[in-house]
Amino acid sequence: MPQGTLLYAQSGGVTAVINATAAAVIAEARARKVKVLAARNGILGALREELIDTSRESAATIRALAHTPGGAFGSCRVKLKSLDEDRARYERLLDVLRAHDVRWFLYNGGNDSADTANKVSKLAAEFGYPLTCVGVPKTVDNDLAVTDCCPGFGSAAKYTAVSVREAALDVAAMAETSTKVFVYEAMGRHAGWLAAAAGLAGKGPDDAPHLILFPERPYDEADFLARVGKIVAKVGYCVVVASEGIRTADGGFVADAGGGKDSFGHTQLGGVASFLAGRVKHELGMKVHWTLPDYLQRSARHIASKTDLDQALAVGKAAVQYALAGRNATMPVIVRTSDTPYRWKIEPAPLAKIANREKKMPANFIRRDGYGITAAARRYLEPLIRGEAPPPYGRDGIPKYVELDNVLLEKKLAGFDA
Amino acid sequence: MPQGTLLYAQSGGVTAVINATAAAVIAEARARKVKVLAARNGILGALREELIDTSRESAATIRALAHTPGGAFGSCRVKLKSLDEDRARYERLLDVLRAHDVRWFLYNGGNDSADTANKVSKLAAEFGYPLTCVGVPKTVDNDLAVTDCCPGFGSAAKYTAVSVREAALDVAAMAETSTKVFVYEAMGRHAGWLAAAAGLAGKGPDDAPHLILFPERPYDEADFLARVGKIVAKVGYCVVVASEGIRTADGGFVADAGGGKDSFGHTQLGGVASFLAGRVKHELGMKVHWTLPDYLQRSARHIASKTDLDQALAVGKAAVQYALAGRNATMPVIVRTSDTPYRWKIEPAPLAKIANREKKMPANFIRRDGYGITAAARRYLEPLIRGEAPPPYGRDGIPKYVELDNVLLEKKLAGFDA
Repeated sequence: MPQGTLLYAQSGGVTAVINATAAAVIAEARARKVKVLAARNGILGALREELIDTSRESAATIRALAHTPGGAFGSCRVKLKSLDEDRARYERLLDVLRAHDVRWFLYNGGNDSADTANKVSKLAAEFGYPLTCVGVPKTVDNDLAVTDCCPGFGSAAKYTAVSVREAALDVAAMAETSTKVFVYEAMGRHAGWLAAAAGLAGKGPDDAPHLILFPERPYDEADFLARVGKIVAKVGYCVVVASEGIRTADGGFVADAGGGKDSFGHTQLGGVASFLAGRVKHELGMKVHWTLPDYLQRSARHIASKTDLDQALAVGKAAVQYALAGRNATMPVIVRTSDTPYRWKIEPAPLAKIANREKKMPANFIRRDGYGITAAARRYLEPLIRGEAPPPYGRDGIPKYVELDNVLLEKKLAGFDA
Repeated sequence: MPQGTLLYAQSGGVTAVINATAAAVIAEARARKVKVLAARNGILGALREELIDTSRESAATIRALAHTPGGAFGSCRVKLKSLDEDRARYERLLDVLRAHDVRWFLYNGGNDSADTANKVSKLAAEFGYPLTCVGVPKTVDNDLAVTDCCPGFGSAAKYTAVSVREAALDVAAMAETSTKVFVYEAMGRHAGWLAAAAGLAGKGPDDAPHLILFPERPYDEADFLARVGKIVAKVGYCVVVASEGIRTADGGFVADAGGGKDSFGHTQLGGVASFLAGRVKHELGMKVHWTLPDYLQRSARHIASKTDLDQALAVGKAAVQYALAGRNATMPVIVRTSDTPYRWKIEPAPLAKIANREKKMPANFIRRDGYGITAAARRYLEPLIRGEAPPPYGRDGIPKYVELDNVLLEKKLAGFDA
């Protein structure tokens, strides 16, 4: 039995499958007789010494965790700065780890978290504290460097493709006398990965989505409206998918332009879909509807991708293996070895190559006209939404999602203002 | 083999399961050797003599239709007026029916459609044309009179309850450092059936949704905001479900108040969720997110309710049986014979009792404080979302939805401006 405990923390926006990664971490650690603590609300809990004793949860609960969306231990949006600027917090972190004999620190998040895990490993070395830090990938944004894809993305991508396909069938049926243009707003502030995934909803030239607006291409209103008009004339209706992060040529977010004043003079919250819908209605005089799925798209465990779930489980298991093997400052990443048939494996990559970097969508994934995806994009995306992994449902018609007891360990240190 | 053909038409907003009803109509008619025509785009196709020959579709395609959302033959938002006001159109309809030897007319829609089917039956009698008219229930709004519930509602209700549960797990995980208030906008202009269904997402007093805003109760902003504040203080976050049709005490739609001017001075399209989110942000200073699922909620066949699907199939089959038995001016309605265990049967009801009426939500379904559902509502709603009926998926990770060839019959009459 290895000496010490393992600390696991979730970071940043949660996904449909980050808890699957957590479940795999706990199951693998238990199999190796290693005790797992989980930080409450991510790094905040680690700083505040709010540590959850996961051994209080039954094996059945941990298995159910693998089909439960959200972040079971809580997550947070807190980024530690450089070792110099945030010295007090890094040192406090080390104090907490030491107080609970934490020898393995697993940080499950995006590129910020990879950076934090990397810095913690450096500080531990500086202080001569024996600690192995492993980053565990997660993000619906799919923007982590090195890894072929990110756990969380495939399920959100599947949600997007399926929802767009379903809504398009609805719009097609009603277009003659009702809505002619439908706008779907996809997450993606900097990269259009989820908007691109919507392209999987159709295959033929007249299939929805007819237009995809990527943050990688400037939003040209005149061109956009002209295309909408042409598509409605040809197909009878037009389904638009817009990334929340689209910008005009001068670099301003279209979503910000959408925010204005309501009839009481209050500030109106912006949104790309409602803005585009307003422009279509105003300029083309067509009936328009729009949808903003928002968190639904990243929490929809009920339509998770089997590929995504498998990868979320695999990175969790590998992270424990890497930690116990002392592979410090690494992250288990997904390596694609073949498109057809789709094959992948997990390999360790240095955190330094992932920290604070952002993977953009390759230029050859966007169609030359800027409004759709290419065959190369389909080859990349399609395996990621493949396979179904529905949760079990109760007699009440709702998935059997679990909530943990999250029993905190007794504190050993004085308080700290995190 | 009965003499004549059967005409089937879809009307109004489509649902996740209206095509299941269509599939059942066609399958039952085929079993009885009756030829089925389908009007293209609902009553418009009947008026224009745009009639689809469903016999051109294979049995396998018709089976697949049962798991395909949208309206496979097209639907429309066209309401015929009184026999006097719309005489020319009613007579044209009768001409078309006569020209194609239509002896059975099945109109699949809401209370408007029930009214039209009823009027057509009267006119046929007046002209001595042997025609049996049967209304077939459908609407996500669940507002048809007589029937216990409406095919289409249960699946939208299941989508709502599951989506709210999933998003709530996401918000709960992030609330400490991110979104504290989440607003979900449910369809329902006049009655809060879908908003009520969101109540199934939680059971305990602190479970989401914490506040449901019904169109049946006036929107009182001060009271609403005070409650949001209290819930955030107690639970750490607050999930709000608002019906699109909520009104202030003076009767104005809140959604209309939400529409204003964007930063270019263009008219901004309104929305209840974005309006409420803006008020929460402005008055309480809390980070807020909102979702507008819009058509996604009524087209989400991937999360259809098994109860709903079974009922959609049952009313289609019964409609053919009633038609062939000459039960004129009737609708197959769902009769609940037991809550526990849930049992139901199909019975004929006169269209005159359904036409143009609207079923409100019973007052005892809304909690006394006006912000949640009662045990009586749960007893009614819960069986309707029970059971799963996922569509088959392709290797590409997308459900195998079908599109029909929709081959039109040759016209026999002169054109008509419908």
